[in-house]
Amino acid sequence: MNILICNDDGIDAPGIHALAEELKKIARVTVVAPDRQQSAVGHAITMNYPLRAVPFHKNGEFFGYAVDGTPADCVKLAVKFLLKEKPDLVVSGINHGSNTAINIIYSGTVSAATEGTILGIPSIAVSLTTYAAADFRYAARIAARLARMVAERGLPQGTLLNVNVPALPEKEIRGIKITAQGKSSWEDTFDVRRDPANREYFWLTGHMNVTDTDPDTDQVAVLEGYVSVTPIHYDITDHDQCARMRIWGLDAPAEA
Amino acid sequence: MNILICNDDGIDAPGIHALAEELKKIARVTVVAPDRQQSAVGHAITMNYPLRAVPFHKNGEFFGYAVDGTPADCVKLAVKFLLKEKPDLVVSGINHGSNTAINIIYSGTVSAATEGTILGIPSIAVSLTTYAAADFRYAARIAARLARMVAERGLPQGTLLNVNVPALPEKEIRGIKITAQGKSSWEDTFDVRRDPANREYFWLTGHMNVTDTDPDTDQVAVLEGYVSVTPIHYDITDHDQCARMRIWGLDAPAEA
Repeated sequence: MNILICNDDGIDAPGIHALAEELKKIARVTVVAPDRQQSAVGHAITMNYPLRAVPFHKNGEFFGYAVDGTPADCVKLAVKFLLKEKPDLVVSGINHGSNTAINIIYSGTVSAATEGTILGIPSIAVSLTTYAAADFRYAARIAARLARMVAERGLPQGTLLNVNVPALPEKEIRGIKITAQGKSSWEDTFDVRRDPANREYFWLTGHMNVTDTDPDTDQVAVLEGYVSVTPIHYDITDHDQCARMRIWGLDAPAEA
Repeated sequence: MNILICNDDGIDAPGIHALAEELKKIARVTVVAPDRQQSAVGHAITMNYPLRAVPFHKNGEFFGYAVDGTPADCVKLAVKFLLKEKPDLVVSGINHGSNTAINIIYSGTVSAATEGTILGIPSIAVSLTTYAAADFRYAARIAARLARMVAERGLPQGTLLNVNVPALPEKEIRGIKITAQGKSSWEDTFDVRRDPANREYFWLTGHMNVTDTDPDTDQVAVLEGYVSVTPIHYDITDHDQCARMRIWGLDAPAEA
């Protein structure tokens, strides 16, 4: 099995090293990842600048290719140019911080896996739900286990798995839950400051406003100590609203 | 009615000026838009750099605020800081180029409207389906008509409208269709070049591979001369796959 690994924390982040180490036990692994932090880039791609891919070494050994682009750029460049054959699987992560509920929309980790899915490759995004220093080994073993399952069973075209692992000692993990994306959202605030020339500037800040209560949502599952596995897709049509809008008379002659 | 206008082509793009001019006839308008091209940034937000908002003038008059960030940044900053009250509507565009099928995933235009929706404001993204020099006035009138309808009827929490207007003379437009997102995707290629120091670099290029045939998809509707209106949402759980995965035995003791 050939697995392509990517992330959004950058190729030198501890999460991607733990992931690569574990996946090497079950597959041939190629790492193609951003050369720096790319958190919250969403599904950005780089069209106005050229990209470069530079070999990245760790402990004196070749680890992978560092790309000066976004996670989605990395997956495109790997599949369309760097790799000799299409990988059997894309695994993105392990992200340092959760990607649950509304956060999925902003996530570079998820976008790398989404790009794999768009290219017709079964894909998994994996995140560890803490911003503190953390041990990624248990999350890496979960990733390897899911990778084997997905390789065996496949995923429908257009669907990927978004996995969140609580940052708990392994024996405190209560199990693995199939979940739905929660609806909790980010409560934004801007920290207003002034530069030395007295011009205003703004730092985006804020906190996650946890409004979910359903135990079968990603947001609640990880808070309750479960590994959360959410199948997501990028077919985003709201079909119910299509039906409701049929009575709007959109096609009536414009009154203005 | 108060309308917030944003885009991803930048505050000096012709599409946002046509849109503002038309919406000023039906509402108080505030423009907050990126200070430069932000196409294909997806739903990126800026967390690692501070933002600035600078007044932008056109023909000697104040037009709006130029922000050195992404479309989603602009909407957040406008709603959470620049505007005195929450707008009644967010309208993003008019994008120079279509946002149909898979392109929606990469679209900064759509991401501005999505951000409005996340913040609880009914939102519309509008695109004109050409990259050539174009007349945005008809698309602007369509945007104004939909803005009035949405203000009157509302949209469900979490749902926005993605509108694509064919770049045709008005009399050749065949009508307005409620559509589903198509499945056509981008066929990527990388143009490999060498810099003066003989180092390789890559330009992302490619073309839209139109595989949709259903006349009720956005992709086909615009090709057939219809204005396409697609209700989309960011609840991306694949519930069918949740059901299918119940038999995977995810929670069985790990074999490794």
